[in-house]
Amino acid sequence: MYQQILFAADFSEDALRVGERARDIARKCGAKLSLIHVVEDVNISLGGGYELLPVLPDLPDEALLQESRNALGNLAQRLDITDAGLWVVNALSTKEGIIGAAKDHHIDLIVVGSHGRHGLALLLGSTANAVLHGAPCDVLAVRI
Amino acid sequence: MYQQILFAADFSEDALRVGERARDIARKCGAKLSLIHVVEDVNISLGGGYELLPVLPDLPDEALLQESRNALGNLAQRLDITDAGLWVVNALSTKEGIIGAAKDHHIDLIVVGSHGRHGLALLLGSTANAVLHGAPCDVLAVRI
Repeated sequence: MYQQILFAADFSEDALRVGERARDIARKCGAKLSLIHVVEDVNISLGGGYELLPVLPDLPDEALLQESRNALGNLAQRLDITDAGLWVVNALSTKEGIIGAAKDHHIDLIVVGSHGRHGLALLLGSTANAVLHGAPCDVLAVRI
Repeated sequence: MYQQILFAADFSEDALRVGERARDIARKCGAKLSLIHVVEDVNISLGGGYELLPVLPDLPDEALLQESRNALGNLAQRLDITDAGLWVVNALSTKEGIIGAAKDHHIDLIVVGSHGRHGLALLLGSTANAVLHGAPCDVLAVRI
């Protein structure tokens, strides 16, 4: 069974429920649990002509990363897990950040929240979807 | 944790490995495991003009369903699970069959094999992908 589980955490109101699932599975399997949050370093913003333009900023500044580290720590505390790895990484996309970490750390299960796909989300896809297609390991999509 | 787990089985050479994962999780959780195989009743075939045409045949004949029932029974035997529900259903698509059964039987986890997406598969999508988007519950995509 699983030995290295990675919970891909956003800081939405559903993160706690998804995290609980990841935690419970890790406990059942006796697996090590790590939490990751990805700070994307490319943003799409409205350009002058109302076109969607990729904006390539400097790397996220230290304050933003520190804020994410604090939020991830708080989430781990609310989940009552004290021994989890807490990783804040920045990457071109959430998908790349999660998959890169999964490969680097020999993760065998990624746990990610999954919304139903409606409207604009149907067009844009979802993190769960993206992770599913690139993951080197099993992916558990927790319905939220 | 999970109480009703549904393993969506094809009869590929990877089915055994995906099934073992489903079985092991069911045992860890003390969950009931059911196996489903969907016989699609719409096929796409080459029409006279080399166009891709949907072909609406009669419902799959009893021989085909019986063959699938036998294959599902064999798979359950190889997985050493004797008490699993074995469901062969026919539906418009594999996705619809799996999701319909998940709703009808109050499934809380669907386990499905997931290939990496390359070439044509990238265009066509995958069963795991389709199930993920319509599922009423959690989905575990087992990497094969």
